[in-house]
Amino acid sequence: MIKAGIYGATGYTGWELVKLLQRHPAAGIAFVTSQSQAGQTLRDVFPAAPALRLVAGEDAPLGDVDVVFLCLPHAAAGETALKALAAGARVIDLSADFRLRDAATYAAWYAHTHPAPHLLDEAVYGLTEVCRAELPGARLVANPGCYPTSVLLALRPLMLSDMPIAGPIIADSASGVSGAGRSPTATTHFVQVAGNYAPYKIGRAHRHLPEMEQALRRWRADAPPLLFSPHLLPVPRGILSTIYVTFAGEVDEDDLRARYATAYDDEPFVDVLPAGQLASLAHVNHTNRCAIALTLTGRTLILTAAIDNLIKGAAGQAVQNMNVMFGCPETSGLI
Amino acid sequence: MIKAGIYGATGYTGWELVKLLQRHPAAGIAFVTSQSQAGQTLRDVFPAAPALRLVAGEDAPLGDVDVVFLCLPHAAAGETALKALAAGARVIDLSADFRLRDAATYAAWYAHTHPAPHLLDEAVYGLTEVCRAELPGARLVANPGCYPTSVLLALRPLMLSDMPIAGPIIADSASGVSGAGRSPTATTHFVQVAGNYAPYKIGRAHRHLPEMEQALRRWRADAPPLLFSPHLLPVPRGILSTIYVTFAGEVDEDDLRARYATAYDDEPFVDVLPAGQLASLAHVNHTNRCAIALTLTGRTLILTAAIDNLIKGAAGQAVQNMNVMFGCPETSGLI
Amino acid sequence: MIKAGIYGATGYTGWELVKLLQRHPAAGIAFVTSQSQAGQTLRDVFPAAPALRLVAGEDAPLGDVDVVFLCLPHAAAGETALKALAAGARVIDLSADFRLRDAATYAAWYAHTHPAPHLLDEAVYGLTEVCRAELPGARLVANPGCYPTSVLLALRPLMLSDMPIAGPIIADSASGVSGAGRSPTATTHFVQVAGNYAPYKIGRAHRHLPEMEQALRRWRADAPPLLFSPHLLPVPRGILSTIYVTFAGEVDEDDLRARYATAYDDEPFVDVLPAGQLASLAHVNHTNRCAIALTLTGRTLILTAAIDNLIKGAAGQAVQNMNVMFGCPETSGLI
Amino acid sequence: MIKAGIYGATGYTGWELVKLLQRHPAAGIAFVTSQSQAGQTLRDVFPAAPALRLVAGEDAPLGDVDVVFLCLPHAAAGETALKALAAGARVIDLSADFRLRDAATYAAWYAHTHPAPHLLDEAVYGLTEVCRAELPGARLVANPGCYPTSVLLALRPLMLSDMPIAGPIIADSASGVSGAGRSPTATTHFVQVAGNYAPYKIGRAHRHLPEMEQALRRWRADAPPLLFSPHLLPVPRGILSTIYVTFAGEVDEDDLRARYATAYDDEPFVDVLPAGQLASLAHVNHTNRCAIALTLTGRTLILTAAIDNLIKGAAGQAVQNMNVMFGCPETSGLI
Repeated sequence: MIKAGIYGATGYTGWELVKLLQRHPAAGIAFVTSQSQAGQTLRDVFPAAPALRLVAGEDAPLGDVDVVFLCLPHAAAGETALKALAAGARVIDLSADFRLRDAATYAAWYAHTHPAPHLLDEAVYGLTEVCRAELPGARLVANPGCYPTSVLLALRPLMLSDMPIAGPIIADSASGVSGAGRSPTATTHFVQVAGNYAPYKIGRAHRHLPEMEQALRRWRADAPPLLFSPHLLPVPRGILSTIYVTFAGEVDEDDLRARYATAYDDEPFVDVLPAGQLASLAHVNHTNRCAIALTLTGRTLILTAAIDNLIKGAAGQAVQNMNVMFGCPETSGLI
Repeated sequence: MIKAGIYGATGYTGWELVKLLQRHPAAGIAFVTSQSQAGQTLRDVFPAAPALRLVAGEDAPLGDVDVVFLCLPHAAAGETALKALAAGARVIDLSADFRLRDAATYAAWYAHTHPAPHLLDEAVYGLTEVCRAELPGARLVANPGCYPTSVLLALRPLMLSDMPIAGPIIADSASGVSGAGRSPTATTHFVQVAGNYAPYKIGRAHRHLPEMEQALRRWRADAPPLLFSPHLLPVPRGILSTIYVTFAGEVDEDDLRARYATAYDDEPFVDVLPAGQLASLAHVNHTNRCAIALTLTGRTLILTAAIDNLIKGAAGQAVQNMNVMFGCPETSGLI
Repeated sequence: MIKAGIYGATGYTGWELVKLLQRHPAAGIAFVTSQSQAGQTLRDVFPAAPALRLVAGEDAPLGDVDVVFLCLPHAAAGETALKALAAGARVIDLSADFRLRDAATYAAWYAHTHPAPHLLDEAVYGLTEVCRAELPGARLVANPGCYPTSVLLALRPLMLSDMPIAGPIIADSASGVSGAGRSPTATTHFVQVAGNYAPYKIGRAHRHLPEMEQALRRWRADAPPLLFSPHLLPVPRGILSTIYVTFAGEVDEDDLRARYATAYDDEPFVDVLPAGQLASLAHVNHTNRCAIALTLTGRTLILTAAIDNLIKGAAGQAVQNMNVMFGCPETSGLI
Repeated sequence: MIKAGIYGATGYTGWELVKLLQRHPAAGIAFVTSQSQAGQTLRDVFPAAPALRLVAGEDAPLGDVDVVFLCLPHAAAGETALKALAAGARVIDLSADFRLRDAATYAAWYAHTHPAPHLLDEAVYGLTEVCRAELPGARLVANPGCYPTSVLLALRPLMLSDMPIAGPIIADSASGVSGAGRSPTATTHFVQVAGNYAPYKIGRAHRHLPEMEQALRRWRADAPPLLFSPHLLPVPRGILSTIYVTFAGEVDEDDLRARYATAYDDEPFVDVLPAGQLASLAHVNHTNRCAIALTLTGRTLILTAAIDNLIKGAAGQAVQNMNVMFGCPETSGLI
């Protein structure tokens, strides 16, 4: 039985992890932490949760666990990763702390000196479909951001090709409000959100941008720049990304679809939809799946890619990574 | 032109008042205040608002106005009322400060010593359909609470009768989230509210209870006690109250409906629906109307009563009161 | 392995059953039927569904199954039950066809001659917490209606007492829209529902009323009449019932709470909340649980009871019944 | 007083028109038609509506009106336009029938022979900010589609420039469900829409595409092709378009913003937001306004443009056109 600890269990991602691990046939929850609500139970925060007692991070019995999941703010996550690794636990970090290869880029985007730059090379960027060969030997996994998971899975087959792309790639995305976190703010007040649809940090302003461009360039040196426009959707969960890739030359549609089939036909959690269908949140919510559809119009490929931001965009992918790290069937505990 | 000032214009009720007064043929807005956002404009808070500059309460030019609307927290409202009256302005208070006749009851329910108990007798409880005769001579109007407006309008015709009522009256109500105010809290976070329906302060626990019982008993000395169960609805606005009145004897349905017709047929803002129809938020949202329907089952009358909590439940009724106070047609600026 | 067939798999309840049975450790789906969409797959209706091929009801291989779940319209369900029983399958009917003991009552409320009145005495009313002793020997189970499950579980401990009750019991309920079924109608159009809250068939008009009163009177001969007011909630799923029971004499709160503890402390799917808490959809959605809370105000007990209408109100309770019928742990495949 | 008739008053656009015209200081409603609900009142469809009696289209007293608004399906609208013009009424058509200059394009996109091709040259495409000089002399106005209004207002200043544009313009749009019409369908069922976000007819598949390209090319002969991706938003109303224009050369941001200021500073219903702000539905819903924001990232301009699909996207713009046609202040009856 894999013994898992969860730091920051009172956030939406933490609660989603608890739900997944409680149903996991080969894992169990050893502890759950919360700074602000230590001493209470998870049920005090989420009425449908089990009454797991929350401990303060510093009191977590790190010695008892095989793996910890970090659902902490950036920088705090990095600090905790250091402690956990020192205690011999493997770490799956759901924050951004170990996603970027370069401490300077991290500092520029996160306004913080990196807490453990010496770990950046070792950390595995946890997009499971891409990194699974590295996971069994990994002790530190940087779980990808939610938007990046949808955009990168959608673009990867193109990044494994040399089809010439003209101009920037445009990713126009929309996310449910759980992606903004549980802290009450003016932006997440029900009355502000209901009936609204609002873009934010569009263009090259969102922290997920460097993470996505880093992956794209790792896969294809001449990957074009990315423009990324997130929007807040008046739904609790789900992400849809509508991505525009304009090619510099003619495109053979059958060839294009074949690339996606090759890339994903054998993947349990990536569904390439039949021609004529488009991805939507209804394809994926409450599952660990990513649905991708292709629409070719002239020289522009429009990809629609949907995930549940809390599951394939966070907790589900984290469990998927854990499964591979520990030698379980990759789909254990996941739908 | 009636010159109006609005204290606390950055709350939902304040913004609703601004919208109504801007379209009012005989009124104009002289100032709008905000403590936390003085110096900014209303558009900084509500993107569809006009760019009215917000001043701190203490800087409001009280001498320039005929009437002020107070959309302030309780106790603060009372203090401001004193200043405004001293400056010669008439006051329409949307807080609870002047609704209860008795300072001791106020202290018990609002955990605060009343700021101006000597004004309690003078204050007119501003349920317009009931108090309009008093409004022209009033200089202080206590605008009713939102839930009470729906419950009291629905029950009034029974309170003007001597039909014997058995047991408590039960008012089971539901309100959209704007009734909870604009401050971000765990309870009003979009993810917490969306998809949920939650009762709170049920029975005899909500502050609106003494206000409702006071009115019922003023109309009918032997009015039975009230049980009041509010619920938070995952919608931005609107209140529906489903009210159960069990009579001690047989009830003649035609007689009952005649009482409601007599009470309300000539009222511009109260619609008694035809037999067989039930009130819903769709009947009233974005209007100053109250829709009431009667369903008689054996000896129990089930009333359904709907209002828009921000309009007939607050700002609209406030403007309706202002119209009567200043001798305008009662429907001016209202739909 | 229990081999199960699902009739009417393309409704919301049918799809919920598929989701539950797919994850059930001891059951498998042998067939899924649809009249209008025979030949298509379930994925053509629900994009997140497995691609199970739908067959017409008459083509379902009844001989291959141990149990069938009927998610069919009333009367059609009864007809299918006859065929299934003749083929040797046990039947769990999610329609109303076998809930009422009396064919005349059925005809009055459902405007249809009962298709199999001779089975009415044999049918077990499938409120699992109450009927589990009868399930192992049952070949026909009438799964309760969604609203009745919430109301009856909340009232049962009082029906096992002789605490004198004055006047009618009032159940004021609200349900998410999936309870209305998948057929597009004016009432379930998104624009009509969003932002609205609407009562319907209140008092003694809803078909669930005779079913609830039948159960109450079976448990307690002097059970008072019930008034039942359902409302349509602008959420996809969940039911909250706020129930008012006024006692004829004094009530000892400790005694009352003890009765609920006795009735439910050992029940895996019924949670009686601590004093001071109130039930809400957030307590139960996406689970098979019923959350019940008690608030005593004078002589009136206000019960709040929440369930997920598709799970404990339908598919989950059906699987719970199947578990007991076939000797599995009662919680198999359910959370 | 302008006497107006409304054909198809029982759709969402028709009801919005009724609301606007009822508050219009210089217009009145002479008749409202409905084919399926002739003889009923508008209140039978929309509970908050006035009880205007609906007549069948053929019974509408065309001789009594100065102007008719057509909220009818395409082709039916065109037929009705012919009759109305023959009766001497001026026509504001909210369907697509007179938007396209070319009958062949119409036939290709609407699968219907054009009912009155001889009127195509005369019809004025009613984007008020652009066509107002033509309106006083117009007897037939083709009110633009909702999505096109947002996209065209956002792009117009660029189309009046010769800034070289590289590649297709991409308009990624999202609309509330009222845009889909009032007929109940599987796509507009509350349970299908709530919590979902779904693209449809993306690329060059939506009927609004030829209308938008026609306008863009009329303004600028070398306008690039357009890719248009609409999505269904789980809100009742509002449209947000996020539009990507990549320039072929360097762009001076001040110059760009100056063009938008020149184009729109004096427009009562178009707000160009300050740099740093982004448009959202909250800026415009329930008003006739279009909010536009500019974000320049490298050589790509990202425009965000929001309108209320029922108001500036339909009924509001129709009234704005009527005002200019009849010599009223353009803002009469509109906010």
